[in-house]
Amino acid sequence: MRAWLNGIAVDGSVAVDPADRGLSLGDGLFETILMRDGRPVWLAAHLARMEAAADALGIAFPRAMITSSLHDSGFDAGELEALRITLTRGPGHRGLAGDAGPPTLLVTSSAFDASLQFQPVHLVTASTRRNEHSAASRLKTLSYMDNILAAREAAARGCDDALMLNTTGRAACATIGNVFAVAKHGIVTPPLADGALPGIARRKLLEMGHAREAPLTPEDLREAEALFMTNSLRLVRPVASLDGKAFASGGHRGVVHAFEALKAAFET
Amino acid sequence: MRAWLNGIAVDGSVAVDPADRGLSLGDGLFETILMRDGRPVWLAAHLARMEAAADALGIAFPRAMITSSLHDSGFDAGELEALRITLTRGPGHRGLAGDAGPPTLLVTSSAFDASLQFQPVHLVTASTRRNEHSAASRLKTLSYMDNILAAREAAARGCDDALMLNTTGRAACATIGNVFAVAKHGIVTPPLADGALPGIARRKLLEMGHAREAPLTPEDLREAEALFMTNSLRLVRPVASLDGKAFASGGHRGVVHAFEALKAAFET
Repeated sequence: MRAWLNGIAVDGSVAVDPADRGLSLGDGLFETILMRDGRPVWLAAHLARMEAAADALGIAFPRAMITSSLHDSGFDAGELEALRITLTRGPGHRGLAGDAGPPTLLVTSSAFDASLQFQPVHLVTASTRRNEHSAASRLKTLSYMDNILAAREAAARGCDDALMLNTTGRAACATIGNVFAVAKHGIVTPPLADGALPGIARRKLLEMGHAREAPLTPEDLREAEALFMTNSLRLVRPVASLDGKAFASGGHRGVVHAFEALKAAFET
Repeated sequence: MRAWLNGIAVDGSVAVDPADRGLSLGDGLFETILMRDGRPVWLAAHLARMEAAADALGIAFPRAMITSSLHDSGFDAGELEALRITLTRGPGHRGLAGDAGPPTLLVTSSAFDASLQFQPVHLVTASTRRNEHSAASRLKTLSYMDNILAAREAAARGCDDALMLNTTGRAACATIGNVFAVAKHGIVTPPLADGALPGIARRKLLEMGHAREAPLTPEDLREAEALFMTNSLRLVRPVASLDGKAFASGGHRGVVHAFEALKAAFET
């Protein structure tokens, strides 16, 4: 793993203020970006999402520092890497709402295995619900404990990831990606109001007209022709099973098309 | 602020692995403890809560390292300090549910002003709800974004803290403390099932028979004789107002008694 702290390349550990609110309160944001042929895929969309979220949280957005970290990175053509941008509110002492800063920026990069893309995923519905009654459900914040608990439920039951319902029992998303159902009338993914994270790959499919937003109940998912997950690194993963019910998602034309459409949209 | 990283006293910043899940995912726990006359108040209860939560999250609990940090601390008699124990799952690379570790332990201590105890608090009901559909609502985790959003709502409306409702609209707790209502039939605080954090000061009042658990609606709170908040540092804070409605909580016998009872219970 390579790392840049506040725009400066660092080896090994990073020096963090013990009062940094990223470390003490999950008070910050992150983006995970696919690096391909030395270029970050959908960088403008990722940075726009992060900047809007930083504005919503009152965190100054260090765009220039992010850009300089990426310029410094020297990625090799032909290799995939997973880039992570972590932005915290910085050191703070005066209560939860109090002033803090300057923000801390941590950029890391690790090798990413292309075989993880389109890899089938076995899902289980988690008992841990996603909180659509918080704006945090629509921001990619560092406070990931609900998702971690759901992912641990999935692992304990021998599955790869968890479907998270919202507090009314409708589908929201998985712990590391959005969920899509292929139904007779088209491809559908839950709306943000139902607790779905506004994923970048999700947005690309919506913008290209490959899917539309609509509420999804657990019954809708069970009755779907196929299911798939999306995220920025793995693009599309066919859902092989949900709660033990098998789906032939990997061979479904709509799922394959979504994967191909995302790869064709790398330059957008 | 003084700090100990993994049991060793450190000056200034702490060296953290860039993949530490405390920093990257809010994957950890914390305790805030009042130091009085050089001794941590209710230490056994705090460590028991943290150990049970660490067990629930699958994080090894470094009891001996915590104890050695506290022995090293050399606190002065007669001064109050706020001690914070932060425990993360440690560095991890393999997905949300994946293995990580060893855990990272950060202990910090700062001066604490005694005048903050029994300081009146103006509350506002936040639009951000507390997620009782997650076990994280009953653990003091590092993923504090919902509480941060609620606290920022309160600050934006000129108040000190926010009352957080759960997803069904019943009272859960404030962002940095539990909430109690003094009613005709006694003193009541929301049950953990309603999304209340299991605070240590809360538990002391329940154990001493000064209060009991019962669901509280917003109407129950409006109609209460008095309201107060508790936490481990500030003990009791009378609620001076909630959503603009004034309460004479500071002079209410039940609120004063709760404060005196907690101070008398320091040795328990």
